[in-house]
Amino acid sequence: MRGTGKADIFVMLAHPVGHAKSPGILNEIFEQKGLDSLMVPLTCRPEDFETFWAGLTAAENIRGVIISVPYKVAVYHKCAAAHDRAARVQSANSVRRQADGSWYADNFDGVGFIDALKAAGHQLEGRRVLQVGAGGAGASIAYCLAEAGAEEIRLADIDKDRAETLAGLVGKAFPKCRVQAGEADPTGMDMAVNATPVGMHASDPLPLDVARLTPDMTVVDIIMEPAETALLKAARERGCRVQPGRPMMDYQVRGMSEFFDIDRKDRNHG
Amino acid sequence: MRGTGKADIFVMLAHPVGHAKSPGILNEIFEQKGLDSLMVPLTCRPEDFETFWAGLTAAENIRGVIISVPYKVAVYHKCAAAHDRAARVQSANSVRRQADGSWYADNFDGVGFIDALKAAGHQLEGRRVLQVGAGGAGASIAYCLAEAGAEEIRLADIDKDRAETLAGLVGKAFPKCRVQAGEADPTGMDMAVNATPVGMHASDPLPLDVARLTPDMTVVDIIMEPAETALLKAARERGCRVQPGRPMMDYQVRGMSEFFDIDRKDRNHG
Repeated sequence: MRGTGKADIFVMLAHPVGHAKSPGILNEIFEQKGLDSLMVPLTCRPEDFETFWAGLTAAENIRGVIISVPYKVAVYHKCAAAHDRAARVQSANSVRRQADGSWYADNFDGVGFIDALKAAGHQLEGRRVLQVGAGGAGASIAYCLAEAGAEEIRLADIDKDRAETLAGLVGKAFPKCRVQAGEADPTGMDMAVNATPVGMHASDPLPLDVARLTPDMTVVDIIMEPAETALLKAARERGCRVQPGRPMMDYQVRGMSEFFDIDRKDRNHG
Repeated sequence: MRGTGKADIFVMLAHPVGHAKSPGILNEIFEQKGLDSLMVPLTCRPEDFETFWAGLTAAENIRGVIISVPYKVAVYHKCAAAHDRAARVQSANSVRRQADGSWYADNFDGVGFIDALKAAGHQLEGRRVLQVGAGGAGASIAYCLAEAGAEEIRLADIDKDRAETLAGLVGKAFPKCRVQAGEADPTGMDMAVNATPVGMHASDPLPLDVARLTPDMTVVDIIMEPAETALLKAARERGCRVQPGRPMMDYQVRGMSEFFDIDRKDRNHG
């Protein structure tokens, strides 16, 4: 039976949380594996975050938390230690309880993105990538693209300072990768990535100049709903290889499941 | 699917929480009814209760909480309003969110006890009852016995002051019922109730003088594990009617399900 008094408790925190996909996905995994564990979607208003987080930390049997907008940075700063993937973007999308009760941060946004591309047979080493979006998920992805061996990354963002700053940081961390801020123009690139929320709504503009896509390019969107965004549709019609957002989530969930060690046998309950 | 981002969240709070039965029972009900709701067992140390409760209250999508030892009184005092059943014992075992975000308290300990007895065909009106245990659950039960028409209640507790105090309060609230503190001796009574935890462990003494039980008496134990306590076994062997603890829990859960309005259609999520 799932959800007894001895259940391992995980939380998914976002505001709002109703549209979050990870609680349903994780709970389905727990059920399929026959684990007495629950992934609990919780939400709080930004002005209540400090109070909420203190209370969550006091709940001794909460083993881990998945974090989404707008709390990734705030939660990162609550952690006592972090994986380099989280530290370099100062942002946590997963935290787990350490033996002393404090939190350890990690961030699977970029890893999930890379793993999903690799699983679909995409080569990243030596590639030139246009990435649109230098926000939270975008920062995580840019670092991981450079880490995966991309030769060049062109970062475009409506906030040019943000793109410049991120380009500088990623280039410094991975000097073999040429990283520069630029326009949302895929000309000369092997891959174009949308790492913005532009495309979630039917009325959204296209996040990049699709007229300049050529059939040799791969186009990736991190948006999960709709499954085929206007960008992916336009890219497909132009003969590009396309990669939707859902596999990135699935590979993130795989990373989180390992991070949380959901199968562990040595359960210890309050 | 159960446990999506839109799930209705309920919490079961106790310290420790591992042995709590209500999370498993409620989650099974949610599953059988096909409801996207979770009952989440959580625990915190007593010194962290204030922090924990503030955080739980900040979690906007938590609709209700079931409370057990040692937090029933502390949670009651966090509530903005309460049913008389909770107010008279200054103790909450269930709280639900009000429209303004504050908590409304109720207590189903005594109601569950009475409903389970009635469902098993036991008469309460005009009965004389020995009740051993004047603690949290005991207080709730004593009031409900008097409310259900018991003619006399003899309250026994190792803490005689506690028994005297409760007897005075219940007698004042229900003047038709003769309520007095006394010994754990069933002589002259129709019913003997164990409302203490004595009997949960194999090494426990008997909570009352079983040598004085006669076959016309009914013996009730609120302990759920073991299902047949040493008291119930001794009573059964003496020819008494016996009532175990589990039905009280089942009727409490029924009351809580109505209180939380778990089937409601107008879900409203953060």
